[in-house]
Amino acid sequence: MAKGLPKRSENYSEWYNEIVKRADLAENSAVRGCMVIKPYGFAIWEKMQRALDDMFKATGHVNAYFPLFVPKSFLEKEEEHAEGFAKECAVVTHYRLKANPDGKGLIVDPAAKLEEELIIRPTSETVIWNTYKNWIQSWRDLPLLINQWCNVVRWEMRTRLFLRTTEFLWQEGHTAHSTEQEAIEETERMLDVYATFAEEWMGVPVLRGLKSPNERFAGAIETYCIEALMQDGKALQAGTSHFLGQNFAKSFDVKFVNKENEQEYAWATSWGVSTRLMGALIMAHSDDQGLVLPPKLAPIQVVIIPIYKTLEDLAVISDKVNPLFEELKAAGISVKYDDSDNQRSGWKFAEYELKGVPIRLGLGMRDLENGTIEVARRDTLTKESQPIEGIVEHVKALLEEIQTNIYQRLAFREENTFLVDTWEDFKAQIERGGFVLAHWDGTAETEEKIKEETKATIRCIPLISTMEAGKCIYSGADSGKRVVFAKAY
Amino acid sequence: MAKGLPKRSENYSEWYNEIVKRADLAENSAVRGCMVIKPYGFAIWEKMQRALDDMFKATGHVNAYFPLFVPKSFLEKEEEHAEGFAKECAVVTHYRLKANPDGKGLIVDPAAKLEEELIIRPTSETVIWNTYKNWIQSWRDLPLLINQWCNVVRWEMRTRLFLRTTEFLWQEGHTAHSTEQEAIEETERMLDVYATFAEEWMGVPVLRGLKSPNERFAGAIETYCIEALMQDGKALQAGTSHFLGQNFAKSFDVKFVNKENEQEYAWATSWGVSTRLMGALIMAHSDDQGLVLPPKLAPIQVVIIPIYKTLEDLAVISDKVNPLFEELKAAGISVKYDDSDNQRSGWKFAEYELKGVPIRLGLGMRDLENGTIEVARRDTLTKESQPIEGIVEHVKALLEEIQTNIYQRLAFREENTFLVDTWEDFKAQIERGGFVLAHWDGTAETEEKIKEETKATIRCIPLISTMEAGKCIYSGADSGKRVVFAKAY
Repeated sequence: MAKGLPKRSENYSEWYNEIVKRADLAENSAVRGCMVIKPYGFAIWEKMQRALDDMFKATGHVNAYFPLFVPKSFLEKEEEHAEGFAKECAVVTHYRLKANPDGKGLIVDPAAKLEEELIIRPTSETVIWNTYKNWIQSWRDLPLLINQWCNVVRWEMRTRLFLRTTEFLWQEGHTAHSTEQEAIEETERMLDVYATFAEEWMGVPVLRGLKSPNERFAGAIETYCIEALMQDGKALQAGTSHFLGQNFAKSFDVKFVNKENEQEYAWATSWGVSTRLMGALIMAHSDDQGLVLPPKLAPIQVVIIPIYKTLEDLAVISDKVNPLFEELKAAGISVKYDDSDNQRSGWKFAEYELKGVPIRLGLGMRDLENGTIEVARRDTLTKESQPIEGIVEHVKALLEEIQTNIYQRLAFREENTFLVDTWEDFKAQIERGGFVLAHWDGTAETEEKIKEETKATIRCIPLISTMEAGKCIYSGADSGKRVVFAKAY
Repeated sequence: MAKGLPKRSENYSEWYNEIVKRADLAENSAVRGCMVIKPYGFAIWEKMQRALDDMFKATGHVNAYFPLFVPKSFLEKEEEHAEGFAKECAVVTHYRLKANPDGKGLIVDPAAKLEEELIIRPTSETVIWNTYKNWIQSWRDLPLLINQWCNVVRWEMRTRLFLRTTEFLWQEGHTAHSTEQEAIEETERMLDVYATFAEEWMGVPVLRGLKSPNERFAGAIETYCIEALMQDGKALQAGTSHFLGQNFAKSFDVKFVNKENEQEYAWATSWGVSTRLMGALIMAHSDDQGLVLPPKLAPIQVVIIPIYKTLEDLAVISDKVNPLFEELKAAGISVKYDDSDNQRSGWKFAEYELKGVPIRLGLGMRDLENGTIEVARRDTLTKESQPIEGIVEHVKALLEEIQTNIYQRLAFREENTFLVDTWEDFKAQIERGGFVLAHWDGTAETEEKIKEETKATIRCIPLISTMEAGKCIYSGADSGKRVVFAKAY
């Protein structure tokens, strides 16, 4: 590395951008607002995908693929939905270019104008429910439990790598059910899957809750979400699961014959997580030395670095490393041996630290004599000498310990969650950051005003919380339950 | 099934369409030329993806993701490439909709016109080489071995499910090298990977060859391809691997400092296979009863069907099936037990035959008494009674046998490959179908005329073939080698 990263305490936002770039995770592309996900970043995303996909399949879902294009008339069918997405639609209007008759290059061929414009999917409820119309006739066709992995486009004016990009990758589950109760259970089940993934794989503790009507998905009856707290005290919405009621079934006329032989509209859910999770992963654990990855999602879990002066020494070290490398691999550990000779070991140490590799093993001539190996942990930045005998078992146990230790940020969240009862305290705490639990009178007007004055939004109405009488911090009106406010990404 | 499929011998094209629909592989969407890949079809595609992805990684490649949008100016940079794709581009011109001031619905907001139009990627050479410009400085940065899995759009006027659709899914590998030789080796390596996949996984024998200049990828120096022969005697291009020379490096100014400390343009390859492979898989093996899948790509390898009269009998049978089901699963076999009570076993037999499940196990009360089980093979449509003792081993061996047997279509290809030396014989044989090996004078004019008069194209110039002097079947001019003609999909 040429120079160190910006410090979190000095410029959190720059620190984030620099980690994303220098750890080779992603970069801005030549197309405004669209990113290139680089191989190292994509390898993390692939691990996320695989884990989530396995969880979706374990809960009975199957994958499919629906078109990229949404006819404009489809978007118009569900009114709230249309309103929610109209302002950020990429629109295809023509299907051909031709040579420029007035000079060089290509122009859009005016003769190839589409009769009906096509929208690049910002989400696929409309296309999918138009398809489900033909798939659902009887209660026997239900439930339909389908997911798709794909790209979507929402035209954003201000973008940030992973956190908010015009094109992003995601999965969107779309299910159809014969009863309201079953659809609500599915909505909650998938929220649980997301929370489990965030906590057990990403090592990120999350709050589960409901969105206020203002923050609901356009077209949903109820939006469930998981919210995580970043190191700068801002919240990040990490996943949403929507109970859509019969809204889309009615807009696309999807009826089925129930067991009582009556026609009924189907009940719907949709749920998604995106490459935004990468942003959460980066911000949740990393430090001023760079990325910190949980072992379960690290493309390289262990890196071995030889410490040597001469190429003869390197050969001797490699003789010892090669069988160890194979043993680690055989134990299911993703391991890299970096014996490249064009960089010094000190440079390599910094490089793999920057890239968040959970364990670094260093082996020099002295270690060979002593039968030891140096084991460095990325999460704690500590190192110790270990007997090389039994090192595979030690590494396996250590990976598990690191995965658990990283989740300790639960303590961070608890320390940064505050109960606040007055408007003055509220404003001050929002300024300092963290999750702020406060009473709210339940009106959109109050929510809007609080946002205008403090930039804080209601992140969620927590699922697990006790009813408690109180007064709204803003209006002073009665409230039966605290909600979670924070500034958010 | 309501009624049987059309017969291949009577209407091959209808037979194909009906299999795709009735086996639940895919269907046309509401968007012209775009398909919905249904869960059963997508499960096959997922198996293909996994196998190919493992092969790419085993040959040193990594995955990444590049933007969906190609600025029009990028497409213009490589002239041949621009010309090749201009006529089939979906063009994004606006980024917002707004409420229709004159009535209901949404209209494209004229105020949100893009300064530069964006093309939905038909392929990603331009976007990727524009990115590589920043990634490649020195020979130490090379080779760059990157692949992406994504959707692409080529506006097609006449579409067919899987074989030719406006949007399709594919992978595109894009590599950069420091020498011409290395890039050519990569091009050939990836052709080999495709051929191995087609033969060992899909069970489809392929011819490897070079495209004639006419049929080359727009912007390539040389296009390698694999060609498969379908049951109706038509050829299907199953994958291509392009040696791009320095064309894209020059268009996007991608130079590196070589070991001699000189500036040099990088050498490129690109290679891709798409959901078109699904079409090849379906057409290669299936019969008048439906789909025939090779065990390695079958989402369900074994289906177990209980044969019973009363629910008491079903319970007794299920007691026997459940441990067998677990044993098969533990042996790594993908197995389904269809104990649904709303269809008769005869209906189920036909249904899983239609869906191409390689092995069907039938178990009735008589079998229980005798300690037997009925084993039916999809590929040969034969069945036999087997002792239930040791059935897991039997099934494992049988799956391998079926995989091998399916590849026997090699014989079909050999029987349908013809050496032809006169124009009359050529025309007659092309009419009958098959691969036709004939002499060609090497000119684009002759190639064009042959296509006009017979609809046959040069599928490839085979990589493995002996030089042999002869006369062009059309012009009579000298030729040094036979090439492969056929009508094609």
